[in-house]
Amino acid sequence: MAVYTDVSNDALESFLAGYDIGALLSFKGIAEGVENSNYILRTDQGTFILTLYEKRVDQDDLPFFLGLMDHLQKRGISCPTPCRMRNGAALGVLARRPAAIFTFLDGFSIAKPQVLHCGELGRALGRFHLAGDGFDLSRVNALSVEGWRPLFDLSKSRANDVQSGLEQDIATTLFALEADWPDTLPRGVIHADLFPDNVFFLKNKLSGVIDFYFACNDMLAYDIAICMNAWCFEPDLSFNITKARALLRGYESVRPLSEDEKQALPLLARGSALRFLLTRLYDWLDVPPGALVIPHNPLEYWRKMQFHSDVQSAAEYGL
Amino acid sequence: MAVYTDVSNDALESFLAGYDIGALLSFKGIAEGVENSNYILRTDQGTFILTLYEKRVDQDDLPFFLGLMDHLQKRGISCPTPCRMRNGAALGVLARRPAAIFTFLDGFSIAKPQVLHCGELGRALGRFHLAGDGFDLSRVNALSVEGWRPLFDLSKSRANDVQSGLEQDIATTLFALEADWPDTLPRGVIHADLFPDNVFFLKNKLSGVIDFYFACNDMLAYDIAICMNAWCFEPDLSFNITKARALLRGYESVRPLSEDEKQALPLLARGSALRFLLTRLYDWLDVPPGALVIPHNPLEYWRKMQFHSDVQSAAEYGL
Repeated sequence: MAVYTDVSNDALESFLAGYDIGALLSFKGIAEGVENSNYILRTDQGTFILTLYEKRVDQDDLPFFLGLMDHLQKRGISCPTPCRMRNGAALGVLARRPAAIFTFLDGFSIAKPQVLHCGELGRALGRFHLAGDGFDLSRVNALSVEGWRPLFDLSKSRANDVQSGLEQDIATTLFALEADWPDTLPRGVIHADLFPDNVFFLKNKLSGVIDFYFACNDMLAYDIAICMNAWCFEPDLSFNITKARALLRGYESVRPLSEDEKQALPLLARGSALRFLLTRLYDWLDVPPGALVIPHNPLEYWRKMQFHSDVQSAAEYGL
Repeated sequence: MAVYTDVSNDALESFLAGYDIGALLSFKGIAEGVENSNYILRTDQGTFILTLYEKRVDQDDLPFFLGLMDHLQKRGISCPTPCRMRNGAALGVLARRPAAIFTFLDGFSIAKPQVLHCGELGRALGRFHLAGDGFDLSRVNALSVEGWRPLFDLSKSRANDVQSGLEQDIATTLFALEADWPDTLPRGVIHADLFPDNVFFLKNKLSGVIDFYFACNDMLAYDIAICMNAWCFEPDLSFNITKARALLRGYESVRPLSEDEKQALPLLARGSALRFLLTRLYDWLDVPPGALVIPHNPLEYWRKMQFHSDVQSAAEYGL
């Protein structure tokens, strides 16, 4: 469920007057994006998405996110592209919030991805990683290994209220990951949140990628690990090696992995599971009264983390 | 805030296969309509609205609502029109709910209508009432005078918890309205919920009317009374006679009112205020835990009801 900011017609028409994208015909709040308010706009020149950035996005990061979409689109990645105002800016202010207008991307997300979708995803992720090369801004991944312990500290004392044994298991895993986390693998711009919600398909072909608001600089293979966790488990949390193989082969058809990257995959997958376990645990324990957003159950990612703890090599992912 | 039903891509594509409106390019849940789930659809032939009817709408009423939109559109009223499936039906089933697809209406509602918008509304309402003539289905107004006492009985015992004196004031008004409610005024199809949310404008011209799910057969002048209450009070609940005059003159430029209708206006306006006071009071006292919909404060309509109690003649509305 999305957050909505009320935007008055007058304010929106004034905002649009700064652009060359036509006269407003309609606008409607859409149920997309948890962090921001999104609207679908129609003008006499086409259809666009208007995004208002709410508090959860750090305004200082917006030039990175918008610049990245611009950079990727110019390098052939299908993603929303910020429209420029006549003064050249991609970012403005509407309803006292930073706001931007994007090109509209056809397609829709697949709630239950199949093997062929995982293959499409792998190829797109490989292209994404290559296309990020040369982008001149950077952003630290605040949700990588250095960020996990402070995040854990916020929920530790109540972790066992959610599930007995959870605190100890996280503590053990965290200790191991802090000791062994790799630091020599190839790095670049990663999406860092490429869940099925954020990938659009048309007729089973990937038509584009959205929601760049966790993108950052990190190990490229870590992005693959995030995707494996998000795309390759079945609803009963069994791991589907056929999907993982399709994802990895798709990726390698564009950007082959080094031996070091392959070896690191189980560790990266365990770390990626811990990262989502920790943020979900925090959100789960911190639901404000009257919240409109139902948090994800953190235990799904606990189970995924446990799965990867037992993986000996990337061969178990189908590589 | 709207209700959302999850619709799978496969189910939607199967549903669309029954229509000749093109192949699906995108669909997004929109924040429009409290009673139903609404989606904006794009196909390679255009943009449409998909509506899934949730429990609050009686399925037996749907042929009336859809038929009315069809009838009005054919008689020149700008409103969403149900698309027909290849088998001729306007109503299907999707995600186990009755579902229909409508043409997309440009324009957007005006949060703070001005005098000129009230004039536009009056003319459109007059045309609406004339266009309803000849529609061969009918629907009783369950929220007219006969429905008010049973509704009041559900909230009566707690009315004074909301505002001291409210129970007595409603009881007195209800008694008076039951005694004097007219039964010889011209009747026809009324919209019955023509709030600013449900009227679209483009460049200050009325571009269309939406949300027919309270439409029914009743006194035409009662529909005017509903509009006066919804459009002619300022945020501080003072009555703006200039807006009312514009609304009434706009209406009369299309369909002149009889003397009886004019005389009845203060009573009808009082009754219309009571109708919204009662439904809002009920919703206010009956918010389920975890509700996503914030109910309207009923006292706004109490103040409006009190205003009309003191009105002696339609001259005080600018007529």
